[in-house]
Amino acid sequence: MHLAEYLFRRLHQIGIRGVFGIPGDFNLTALDYIEECGLNWVGNVNELNAGYAADGYARIKGISAIVTTLGVGELSALNAIAGASAELVPVIHVVGFPSTAIQDKKLPIHHTLADGDFEVFMKMSERLSSAAILLREPSEAAKAIDDTIVTCYRSSKPVFIGFPMDLVNTDVDPAPLEHPLWLRTPPSNATSVEEAAVNVIRDRLFKAHNPVILIDSLAGRYQGLHVSRNFVEKSNLPCCVFPMAKGIINESLPNFRGIYAGNVSNPGVLELVKSSDLILLIGPRSTDLNTGGFKTDTPDIDTIVFHRDSVDMQGHTISNISLETVLSKLSEAISASTAVSPVSASPSGHHTSPPSSVDVEPPHISLQEPIQICGRKIDSGSPVTHDWLWERISSWLEEDDIIAMDIGTSALGGLWCRHPRGAQSLFQLLWCSIGYALGATVGAAIAAREQEQESESPRKRRTILFTGDGSLQMTAQEISTMVRQELSPIIFVICNEGYTIERYINGWDKDYNDIQPWDYKLLPSVFKPKPNTVRTYSAHTKGELEALLTDDQFGPAENFNKDIPAPLRLVEIHMDKHDAPQTIPQMISGLHGKSGD
Amino acid sequence: MHLAEYLFRRLHQIGIRGVFGIPGDFNLTALDYIEECGLNWVGNVNELNAGYAADGYARIKGISAIVTTLGVGELSALNAIAGASAELVPVIHVVGFPSTAIQDKKLPIHHTLADGDFEVFMKMSERLSSAAILLREPSEAAKAIDDTIVTCYRSSKPVFIGFPMDLVNTDVDPAPLEHPLWLRTPPSNATSVEEAAVNVIRDRLFKAHNPVILIDSLAGRYQGLHVSRNFVEKSNLPCCVFPMAKGIINESLPNFRGIYAGNVSNPGVLELVKSSDLILLIGPRSTDLNTGGFKTDTPDIDTIVFHRDSVDMQGHTISNISLETVLSKLSEAISASTAVSPVSASPSGHHTSPPSSVDVEPPHISLQEPIQICGRKIDSGSPVTHDWLWERISSWLEEDDIIAMDIGTSALGGLWCRHPRGAQSLFQLLWCSIGYALGATVGAAIAAREQEQESESPRKRRTILFTGDGSLQMTAQEISTMVRQELSPIIFVICNEGYTIERYINGWDKDYNDIQPWDYKLLPSVFKPKPNTVRTYSAHTKGELEALLTDDQFGPAENFNKDIPAPLRLVEIHMDKHDAPQTIPQMISGLHGKSGD
Repeated sequence: MHLAEYLFRRLHQIGIRGVFGIPGDFNLTALDYIEECGLNWVGNVNELNAGYAADGYARIKGISAIVTTLGVGELSALNAIAGASAELVPVIHVVGFPSTAIQDKKLPIHHTLADGDFEVFMKMSERLSSAAILLREPSEAAKAIDDTIVTCYRSSKPVFIGFPMDLVNTDVDPAPLEHPLWLRTPPSNATSVEEAAVNVIRDRLFKAHNPVILIDSLAGRYQGLHVSRNFVEKSNLPCCVFPMAKGIINESLPNFRGIYAGNVSNPGVLELVKSSDLILLIGPRSTDLNTGGFKTDTPDIDTIVFHRDSVDMQGHTISNISLETVLSKLSEAISASTAVSPVSASPSGHHTSPPSSVDVEPPHISLQEPIQICGRKIDSGSPVTHDWLWERISSWLEEDDIIAMDIGTSALGGLWCRHPRGAQSLFQLLWCSIGYALGATVGAAIAAREQEQESESPRKRRTILFTGDGSLQMTAQEISTMVRQELSPIIFVICNEGYTIERYINGWDKDYNDIQPWDYKLLPSVFKPKPNTVRTYSAHTKGELEALLTDDQFGPAENFNKDIPAPLRLVEIHMDKHDAPQTIPQMISGLHGKSGD
Repeated sequence: MHLAEYLFRRLHQIGIRGVFGIPGDFNLTALDYIEECGLNWVGNVNELNAGYAADGYARIKGISAIVTTLGVGELSALNAIAGASAELVPVIHVVGFPSTAIQDKKLPIHHTLADGDFEVFMKMSERLSSAAILLREPSEAAKAIDDTIVTCYRSSKPVFIGFPMDLVNTDVDPAPLEHPLWLRTPPSNATSVEEAAVNVIRDRLFKAHNPVILIDSLAGRYQGLHVSRNFVEKSNLPCCVFPMAKGIINESLPNFRGIYAGNVSNPGVLELVKSSDLILLIGPRSTDLNTGGFKTDTPDIDTIVFHRDSVDMQGHTISNISLETVLSKLSEAISASTAVSPVSASPSGHHTSPPSSVDVEPPHISLQEPIQICGRKIDSGSPVTHDWLWERISSWLEEDDIIAMDIGTSALGGLWCRHPRGAQSLFQLLWCSIGYALGATVGAAIAAREQEQESESPRKRRTILFTGDGSLQMTAQEISTMVRQELSPIIFVICNEGYTIERYINGWDKDYNDIQPWDYKLLPSVFKPKPNTVRTYSAHTKGELEALLTDDQFGPAENFNKDIPAPLRLVEIHMDKHDAPQTIPQMISGLHGKSGD
């Protein structure tokens, strides 16, 4: 078996189907193996977009792959790879290299700096990757590939595989393929320390009067996702999530309370956390935007912190204790306790009934006008505002929706939307690269289609994008890939004349925050879609947007099928350039050293 | 004076006017100083495009600047920065950093990997830069900026300046600004070794019967441009240029003979070089595409090689001898000799009259059909072919044109066009990043407009782009910047269904070399140009293109003025997906290890 075939069969084995990237002269011969290995080549329009697409795909399917070419290709993807590194998304980056003979002779060839150094760009990627290898010895190459894929998964970070052209058709032993890779960390029996820790935590939990679970983003990484979800459901304790953790917990659960981000939180959430006497903080990642500017700490409240490999409590750190083990044991312990204590479904007995009000509206919302949703009266001629928009979108979302939100007013507004069961959101609250969400939408939509094709009882998942005009312009040509791949996302473009989030930081009316206005409705036509596969819309008022959102022919997934395939829908939402979600001034108040001073 | 003002006043002083980039939260406050320093902020659409634009601007004006923000911004520009590094283009990359307080506290903030390391991305850029600094001590910052700018110019490579937000309005002493930076290496008197070397070279030159000058790309770098040009003109010796050196020598000179690229050269050029008895090789840079696959060496011919800082001859290397000094001394020596030897204007006496045929047509041209140019008959209904196109373009170009050509069939065909006096071409024959030329066109057009505005007798320069469809798609949104900045380039898009150059390498009919067909004519309308500022065209046949090229209302610079401003013109040229310049199979034959085996 040729080495390229080995690589791609491994990718297929771990669940990858769509492979992103751009052909380049050092990867062309490898691409010849894609199809025969059961993979689909998603030719993106450029490498940055391909990297974003790979990130989006991995967030839905667990892992992804992108193929680029030396120098020109790989470097264009680096911002996306760095984003995956920051946000802990496992992406396998395969880079086509010149032959080992050319490398050995240090020939000054194209796509290099002509200095004979073929590893200079790999060394740049190394800083963003949990593993970076340049294949060399055929006898070691297959194992190196296997190890690197496992590292990618377990580290939840990008890896780099440099693939010289002359190794593409090198023969390797196919035997290892008979044994699928064990991606997950092997489970181990709980140690006595873990057992003891679980007992201590359980006892403290039962003694607490107002315990609360705070889920942060690392709870959804490193194999923690399912145990975290299970723990929240089993415990039935009031649970809040940090902004970056949105999507980990089913927001339709009765014990879900909303988003906690310090003072930026809805007052109900803030009060819940502040009045608790025990916090279980799971998977913390204290970044600025995730914490309202490092203001989520609650030093006066007894807190048990669950890290990936340790637990902090009562001033002690217990190391080498896995989040996965301790949370699953704790879930068991609670279930066992409630089984013998039928008085209450919740361990403390304080939270058996659903809360009277689920606190998921955008905080501090102040409705200035007679506004009603779902058949109630709205001031239909008034302009769309963020505070209206995101509440309205909350009730328009459907189960299983994939919701990509670009950083800026889209993500910082949209993250306060209540998500229905099964919904998944894609946004970068740490890396914050504008233009990301459009590329990620391509990857997510392809992943969702694969899930639909592979499932016996397919969910009809919509892929929805909220992006700004400045953001969309960055990666606009990737709509061409949507057209080419016949994807049918719903794209909302917030047209507000530029970089509104930046106006709140500096340059309220400065030219540098302005952009060229585009006719976004015209854009899909440039990409020559097939007839009836694209629809475009424009909304300048609440009434216009409301009419669209209530139009059965526009949104509901159930109204499209094989006979009436869903089209790509692009909606311009025109808004004032200075309008932003009311949370924004607070969310950005901690940035840029104000908290650092 | 605030440090940001100091930086931007320095940029102004060295001739920069347009500054490229994208606003981001860590550079916003610095951008507030741009305008007051007499600079113009060119808001690009994304950072990669901004980097390409900065490269194009520097190739016209000598140096350029781009401003991005930490992480997300700078990394998106890296492919362009690497291209400038490979192709030796001086670009000053200013990156907005968080405050030094945030850095010192290692806060896990957005646009970082949340690991407290704020220099990780700078270390990546370091590998592509001749200097990379992160400003820190206010008392040292101004000098650090000055030194870095000088390094940029003298190394002809990118430099990196990290600018923390809290230093933007730090006070610095403005006194150094009274002394403009001395960018050029200080001239020195010729040493006795240099004098002796010049004498030896002169004597050998006079004894040679068929000397020939070969100009390679480094002749146009490191202050060598003007001395190289002067030497070629003064000597009147037959002169050929390597492909990457195109643009250094005025191709309308009587002693200009064409492009030398080994066996890929036109037979007349190849014969000229092979039959010479002395080669003066100036500024060699032996990269694969520049040498027809490392096949330009002529070991049997006596050769004097002029490097930047040394001369090789007769088996010796004379070090520490500058190209600038030795070539200017040699020009003087030749002038003095011809003054006392009026028999001939050329030192050897063999080349006084213009050559009977100047050998600049595309090599190996084979005209399959009755084709005539400039009023003569053509088979007007037949499809446009590359071999016809580039010959036709040769005669359509005007003096002073700036001609950007994207790598692929555009650059590999277009470089064989004869260029009129004053023409400058922009292309990447080493870095070879597709999409580059569109971005570079933005920068070049802005540079040309600045030159026009600053000059007392302005040249009306056209900026012309030849690009492929796959290339244009990579950076297509930068046409928005052309519209926004009211630039009026002429854009030829070769529509041939994908990556034709790659089909010649691998995958003749493979899907991965296909792209989505776009309606390129529709694209400018997306960007909402003002009325009558954009015209689009489509040519499917030679006749249609011929009609356009001879249309007085389309091309000639002289037919546009203040009353009839030149519009942005976009021309689709439809060609067969397998058609390519006949040189291509030979030019790429040396790639990918065939020469390395």
